Amino acid sequence: MSNLNIPWEDKPLNCDDTIWRYSKNPIIERNAIKNSNSIFNSAVISYENEFVGIFRCDNKCREMNIHFGSSKDGINWKIKDKPIEFKSANSSDEEVGISSYKYDPRLCKIENRYYITWCNGYHGPTIGVGYTDDFKTFYQTENAFLPFNRNGVLFPKKINGKFAMLSRPSDNGHTQFGDIFYSESPDLIHWGKHRHVMGTTNINTSPWQSTKIGAGPVPIETKEGWLLIYHGVLTSCNGYVYHMGAAILDKETPWKVLYRSRPYLLSPQKQYECVGDVPNVVFPCATLHDKKTGKIAIYYGAADTVTCLAFSTIQDIIDFTKNNSL
Amino acid sequence: MSNLNIPWEDKPLNCDDTIWRYSKNPIIERNAIKNSNSIFNSAVISYENEFVGIFRCDNKCREMNIHFGSSKDGINWKIKDKPIEFKSANSSDEEVGISSYKYDPRLCKIENRYYITWCNGYHGPTIGVGYTDDFKTFYQTENAFLPFNRNGVLFPKKINGKFAMLSRPSDNGHTQFGDIFYSESPDLIHWGKHRHVMGTTNINTSPWQSTKIGAGPVPIETKEGWLLIYHGVLTSCNGYVYHMGAAILDKETPWKVLYRSRPYLLSPQKQYECVGDVPNVVFPCATLHDKKTGKIAIYYGAADTVTCLAFSTIQDIIDFTKNNSL
Amino acid sequence: MSNLNIPWEDKPLNCDDTIWRYSKNPIIERNAIKNSNSIFNSAVISYENEFVGIFRCDNKCREMNIHFGSSKDGINWKIKDKPIEFKSANSSDEEVGISSYKYDPRLCKIENRYYITWCNGYHGPTIGVGYTDDFKTFYQTENAFLPFNRNGVLFPKKINGKFAMLSRPSDNGHTQFGDIFYSESPDLIHWGKHRHVMGTTNINTSPWQSTKIGAGPVPIETKEGWLLIYHGVLTSCNGYVYHMGAAILDKETPWKVLYRSRPYLLSPQKQYECVGDVPNVVFPCATLHDKKTGKIAIYYGAADTVTCLAFSTIQDIIDFTKNNSL
Amino acid sequence: MSNLNIPWEDKPLNCDDTIWRYSKNPIIERNAIKNSNSIFNSAVISYENEFVGIFRCDNKCREMNIHFGSSKDGINWKIKDKPIEFKSANSSDEEVGISSYKYDPRLCKIENRYYITWCNGYHGPTIGVGYTDDFKTFYQTENAFLPFNRNGVLFPKKINGKFAMLSRPSDNGHTQFGDIFYSESPDLIHWGKHRHVMGTTNINTSPWQSTKIGAGPVPIETKEGWLLIYHGVLTSCNGYVYHMGAAILDKETPWKVLYRSRPYLLSPQKQYECVGDVPNVVFPCATLHDKKTGKIAIYYGAADTVTCLAFSTIQDIIDFTKNNSL
Amino acid sequence: MSNLNIPWEDKPLNCDDTIWRYSKNPIIERNAIKNSNSIFNSAVISYENEFVGIFRCDNKCREMNIHFGSSKDGINWKIKDKPIEFKSANSSDEEVGISSYKYDPRLCKIENRYYITWCNGYHGPTIGVGYTDDFKTFYQTENAFLPFNRNGVLFPKKINGKFAMLSRPSDNGHTQFGDIFYSESPDLIHWGKHRHVMGTTNINTSPWQSTKIGAGPVPIETKEGWLLIYHGVLTSCNGYVYHMGAAILDKETPWKVLYRSRPYLLSPQKQYECVGDVPNVVFPCATLHDKKTGKIAIYYGAADTVTCLAFSTIQDIIDFTKNNSL
Amino acid sequence: MSNLNIPWEDKPLNCDDTIWRYSKNPIIERNAIKNSNSIFNSAVISYENEFVGIFRCDNKCREMNIHFGSSKDGINWKIKDKPIEFKSANSSDEEVGISSYKYDPRLCKIENRYYITWCNGYHGPTIGVGYTDDFKTFYQTENAFLPFNRNGVLFPKKINGKFAMLSRPSDNGHTQFGDIFYSESPDLIHWGKHRHVMGTTNINTSPWQSTKIGAGPVPIETKEGWLLIYHGVLTSCNGYVYHMGAAILDKETPWKVLYRSRPYLLSPQKQYECVGDVPNVVFPCATLHDKKTGKIAIYYGAADTVTCLAFSTIQDIIDFTKNNSL
Repeated sequence: MSNLNIPWEDKPLNCDDTIWRYSKNPIIERNAIKNSNSIFNSAVISYENEFVGIFRCDNKCREMNIHFGSSKDGINWKIKDKPIEFKSANSSDEEVGISSYKYDPRLCKIENRYYITWCNGYHGPTIGVGYTDDFKTFYQTENAFLPFNRNGVLFPKKINGKFAMLSRPSDNGHTQFGDIFYSESPDLIHWGKHRHVMGTTNINTSPWQSTKIGAGPVPIETKEGWLLIYHGVLTSCNGYVYHMGAAILDKETPWKVLYRSRPYLLSPQKQYECVGDVPNVVFPCATLHDKKTGKIAIYYGAADTVTCLAFSTIQDIIDFTKNNSL
Repeated sequence: MSNLNIPWEDKPLNCDDTIWRYSKNPIIERNAIKNSNSIFNSAVISYENEFVGIFRCDNKCREMNIHFGSSKDGINWKIKDKPIEFKSANSSDEEVGISSYKYDPRLCKIENRYYITWCNGYHGPTIGVGYTDDFKTFYQTENAFLPFNRNGVLFPKKINGKFAMLSRPSDNGHTQFGDIFYSESPDLIHWGKHRHVMGTTNINTSPWQSTKIGAGPVPIETKEGWLLIYHGVLTSCNGYVYHMGAAILDKETPWKVLYRSRPYLLSPQKQYECVGDVPNVVFPCATLHDKKTGKIAIYYGAADTVTCLAFSTIQDIIDFTKNNSL
Repeated sequence: MSNLNIPWEDKPLNCDDTIWRYSKNPIIERNAIKNSNSIFNSAVISYENEFVGIFRCDNKCREMNIHFGSSKDGINWKIKDKPIEFKSANSSDEEVGISSYKYDPRLCKIENRYYITWCNGYHGPTIGVGYTDDFKTFYQTENAFLPFNRNGVLFPKKINGKFAMLSRPSDNGHTQFGDIFYSESPDLIHWGKHRHVMGTTNINTSPWQSTKIGAGPVPIETKEGWLLIYHGVLTSCNGYVYHMGAAILDKETPWKVLYRSRPYLLSPQKQYECVGDVPNVVFPCATLHDKKTGKIAIYYGAADTVTCLAFSTIQDIIDFTKNNSL
Repeated sequence: MSNLNIPWEDKPLNCDDTIWRYSKNPIIERNAIKNSNSIFNSAVISYENEFVGIFRCDNKCREMNIHFGSSKDGINWKIKDKPIEFKSANSSDEEVGISSYKYDPRLCKIENRYYITWCNGYHGPTIGVGYTDDFKTFYQTENAFLPFNRNGVLFPKKINGKFAMLSRPSDNGHTQFGDIFYSESPDLIHWGKHRHVMGTTNINTSPWQSTKIGAGPVPIETKEGWLLIYHGVLTSCNGYVYHMGAAILDKETPWKVLYRSRPYLLSPQKQYECVGDVPNVVFPCATLHDKKTGKIAIYYGAADTVTCLAFSTIQDIIDFTKNNSL
Repeated sequence: MSNLNIPWEDKPLNCDDTIWRYSKNPIIERNAIKNSNSIFNSAVISYENEFVGIFRCDNKCREMNIHFGSSKDGINWKIKDKPIEFKSANSSDEEVGISSYKYDPRLCKIENRYYITWCNGYHGPTIGVGYTDDFKTFYQTENAFLPFNRNGVLFPKKINGKFAMLSRPSDNGHTQFGDIFYSESPDLIHWGKHRHVMGTTNINTSPWQSTKIGAGPVPIETKEGWLLIYHGVLTSCNGYVYHMGAAILDKETPWKVLYRSRPYLLSPQKQYECVGDVPNVVFPCATLHDKKTGKIAIYYGAADTVTCLAFSTIQDIIDFTKNNSL
Repeated sequence: MSNLNIPWEDKPLNCDDTIWRYSKNPIIERNAIKNSNSIFNSAVISYENEFVGIFRCDNKCREMNIHFGSSKDGINWKIKDKPIEFKSANSSDEEVGISSYKYDPRLCKIENRYYITWCNGYHGPTIGVGYTDDFKTFYQTENAFLPFNRNGVLFPKKINGKFAMLSRPSDNGHTQFGDIFYSESPDLIHWGKHRHVMGTTNINTSPWQSTKIGAGPVPIETKEGWLLIYHGVLTSCNGYVYHMGAAILDKETPWKVLYRSRPYLLSPQKQYECVGDVPNVVFPCATLHDKKTGKIAIYYGAADTVTCLAFSTIQDIIDFTKNNSL
């Protein structure tokens, strides 16, 4: 991850929690670019001495799309006013690249290419797949799955020689269920070997993840296995509440869950998390981490309105997950 | 509109939006009168050297009713503690004037008489109709339509020799659909020639108005046609979000939509719009405008709790609507 | 009603019920005309030495439309293969005559003209209105009401100098509620003076009419008042059950209910009423009656699939209604 | 109630309301103990020169449990980090004491023993019952009722020689209905003589209590009868809103309602009531009152997140209830 | 059971099933008494040289009530035209005996008294309790439980010195869930010691009982334990399907299930079970059995419309249940 | 298709319809094998001088599974009492072959191997895939897709060098929506190039297919393109009604629909189609056809209870589809 410094702020003195919020949250306001209604679930990575990102920006039609942005420090971002224009990876087939909306992107580097996955509108929500080599020209290829699916997240390297993706099969509305599955592909076009990774919890045990769960940032390879930060949803009598938690997946067979946090890591408690277009949402989509120090910066959407940061160390999250495992 | 000055505040310097909020919003707090729980969707007009208004006041039983108020400046209002008492326009018929609740009034001057329309409880919500010549004695006449209906808004002059009204047929609950229709009446009692004006949008195109829409303030006659400010609703995974937009209707055949804004004009973003009895609501019900300057003050309810003001010019709203039309 | 004999069959010997079924039901099978899926809710009247009728025929696309038919005996019907083609009563207005579907017709003679009302698809179900003078040329005029409405039934003469109609305001789906209302019109175009006639019953009292009710055949003028045969719906744990009942409305103020049957007159019990496209439906839409003898033949749809007949006398139905009134 | 001073703050000068909030609300923050997500619906009483309480603490798994706490002033509380561990009152029966969750406790002294009731998870929510003599050892006995039930509240003395309890039969989800019932028991194990006390109101009359109602703090014996503070729920188009009201029940036959407040006493209006895990909730569970002065301190949960205080006098609440009775 | 012969028909030759239908089903038609719409879920017992029964008769208002009937052979029944009139067992309390409807009775002899339980309308469905010593005078006492409850079934002798009852807590509509619970009472008034007996099954294992289950006839004491015949419901895409199964409960602790049938014993397959007011229902409510031969006659309602009989032997049902246990 | 004669019965004389039912329907009764509750959606093919089939048999637990059967004439079938036992095609991976239920099989010969697809329970319904070379040993391989999916139907030859499958993405219940999609696979394990084939129709146009549609038998290659017989569902006020229709897909790009029938080919009208476990269902899953004569026998499930046959010729169905195309 080059010699860039990831965003960082030390843990507050009297804080007992495993992860802590950036004191200047939100880092991106809802109106940060022209015509934006909100900028929230966002994916970042380091690239050539700066940070780059793919940002979900809903415009003032409330249309959902993804925009490119860059930053020197990972906190102050320049985001393009216009959505990314994808070229078709297969221009001879008019169906490739159809997209009635794009949202909740993830960004993943695999073998020197940068892959973007997102929720893509193709007769219902499914997982759109694109790539870029330079963050200037972007290509869209085949959707990974049939609808209805959301929260497609690639692993940053091939597993058993194949591309690997987590996703959450859904329905065509505000889905009231949702488990995390694993799938493999030899070519990023055809996907199979679908495996159930983990489901929702019983309402009496770890209720924060009892309605639906979905993969968050690209999994991080650690000695313990793949560290997966994910979101979990509780249905209160006034709607959904989105929390953040963590799990550790087996390295070779990532559909096997080694540890999974029974308590949440973060829940909506701050004004910018509780008030906005969708109240009571924290939704992690990306991390930056420093291999040497283990510091990690987690980017998360708040209230489906603004973009925020939280910090921890990889080891602390692993310890939390192992010590509080379901 | 006499020599009264409508409320006004200049556009903030760095504001790119077409309409802007009054810096001292809300202008009417929820507890502004004795026993009120909230005062929000409100209708105002100029009358004899002052502004007068009909205000939706929910009391502390959460009963909904409409109250009379007056103001010298359109910002500071004296609202009566007691609801308006309507006399029956047809006292020989005991059914005229039945009203289990009244809410969301509009106020419209047609040929020297002031007409009030509201959502009236008569075996379900429908459009109640009343009038006054002096804002002292109020008469209630026949409901315009069969239930279930809401957001009945009169045109300020007859169309083709008939009274004309926009409304939104509904159901008996928190309706999940709703288009705007046009109807005509020779006598304000019998209504017909019902025409579909405009419907909700596809969820992929202008999602802010994809669940239901309803007419807002009394349409304003302009060279371009009737300027209609209206509300549109998006269903998020945590409930409805009410936005404000605009359309231009044909002068002679107002059921023909000439332009209709694809982006919203205003969405709930301020604390007083996002937090309250119904979070995430901006709901316009009335305007004051200055013919000479084209300045317009838009009264809107926020979070179904308080009354707010926003400003623009008629020309700017027209330009916005034409330039961003669906 | 000329010198035609209405269909008739004497009451079976051991029958205690007020009305009894025709022993050869159904009189019209579902496939009686080419391409029909079902022929059921139907309206009949006598005209020039024969009986004529307007029949709901769903075709094999399951599209709903209304067809003309005639019969010498009221039992054996010749129904046209093609739906009625209505001319616009106002050909200069392209909106008049829009109809995405037509169903559940009623047929009513008022002052030598024959009026047809039906559920008409105009941005939702509403009450379509048409007329004919000769059953050869048919005209469609303005819809009576805004959507959403069903079961619009005209009175066979003007009330207080105005056309009068019963209807059931609805929503845009398989409505789970529904009361009967009364409206008046000076010109069959503009409607007002809307009055609530009767609502559903408490689930503990007369449960057969506790979900929704709707007017059936054209009301019959009697000494006691207007005899209204109507349908009432109970929601069982496996869906709706449609029954038939009767009420007597005041002659001059027909929104005042003088008597209303607490038990049903008929419920779905026969194979052709319990099995079909919509199980468990009896749905009356028309009657023929003989003024001299008081004999009455009731046409009703069964299981939304076939057309049936039941018999009684007007006096017996009146007695039943008065003796078993809510 | 010994010589302890209950918490108190005088009524603000310009306040017209019957009850007023503590100016330093919330008195208990959501993170007041280690691992708590929220601390809200709570029951307090005086015991041996201090105040003690049973607190609903949801932990960071969002599991619901009840904790013991104590306070010198009723405002600053020391709450145990760990939930109360109940011993089985019948250790030979393994079913006694099963509890998949505990929430919304009430605390009631009857004849020198302290009884705790709560919503207990036993194949659905029902009313758990426990007791203590010293607030050190706690015993759990038989659940009072079959599921599904919530808001079980004991009377502080026997009625007609029997223990008496109010409760609200429910279903197994976010129940959309709910009336208050009364039941009696000779032994705190077997319950019978169930009586309906009061139901929800018609949506047009006192809408704040039209969806469901539930008993709040332990009823207070007054000359007028039992003073019952309770919650009532309105369903807005964006979810439930919980309010506080009061009723007076007959002394000997407490299922007879003498007076019941038509307006609410308190509705969610403050930031800490409108924003949190469940927006728009005020939920009273306990009171402290001073017999001599009649002062009363009401403990209520706000937004299902924090604990708050409001003040009044018993006489003022009685007067309010009588003067504004349904 | 005296010297009466229970109804009987030998097993058909080529029948592999454990229970078989009476060849002349239904034994009671829907119109068997004057004004009845349907006669179905019914409870029978032998009494003084004949069989007596309590019959659910819905009248032609679709009101639900219970009637007395008697029979010499258990097949041909004389049922009273009028519902049973219960005297209040506590005439000084006006609340005892309130009943907005009565349905699904069970009849149980305990220590020479005949007890009737049924679903009783008291601010929602709950378990009504009555008794008679002579089937001439009937007394109604306190409802056993708070609403919402259905299918209350007494054991025919005291368990551990107490009356014992099975029931199924419900909600106030067509409940989509439902487990069987056990409760005890010292006096038939106060009930406690509530125990969960058995719940619904996973949709993949024994789907016929995956939506809800409820006790059927009075349990039969056998060497193996209490034989409980019960109903189980599957939700198909066109509604509920009611089946019949069996379980064996521990003699002393009847909330412990020793065996429970994985397949059903009977499902709706005959015309009279599949077609009627509620299609696809078999619903057992009573048995007669012969101690010497072990023959058993099972009375069940079919399609919520008519009363039917099926036969088997107690030993065969026990074997079936043990050999096919979940 | 060897020298076997497919089942056949000539068209009845006065029949105008394109397809006609076998006069001795149903050909397989619900209890045709031991322990079966129903035998309906079934797949057949010719193999070595007889017909073989895979039959959906629900047992008396109402568990769903698939059984092997064979027949000399395609009408009289011998079905195995026990479900097919599949061997894992990849025995080293314990996840391959997991199946909590199997239903609605299709059977397809591709290049001398027989492939079976079905709805497979793997954390929700998805498309199970298996194969056999001899109808003695059966292998199960990877599920084709992530849940939730139903009605997976293979093409009988590779398209553009790849296996090709139609399917209907669904949700986890009685899905209220559903379009047909196309997917390709190089290896029958990894699937991609997902294409939308056709969706539901507007409720006003061809309502029989307005709720959901799904592919039926294996498509038949004709000069005109791929002939696809499929089912379409209408939602009546008493549940779903399943019809049969046909479409013609482009040979090389089968996701392009050339023709699609606006009317249905068959709707539930016979007793065995209208009455059963799921009333009002005709559901085609397989065909046999004679290349020389073009005769076709269509196997369809009726009322989710029994197996039936209907006949036509391929040319007649093609003509019908082209002449009545949407």
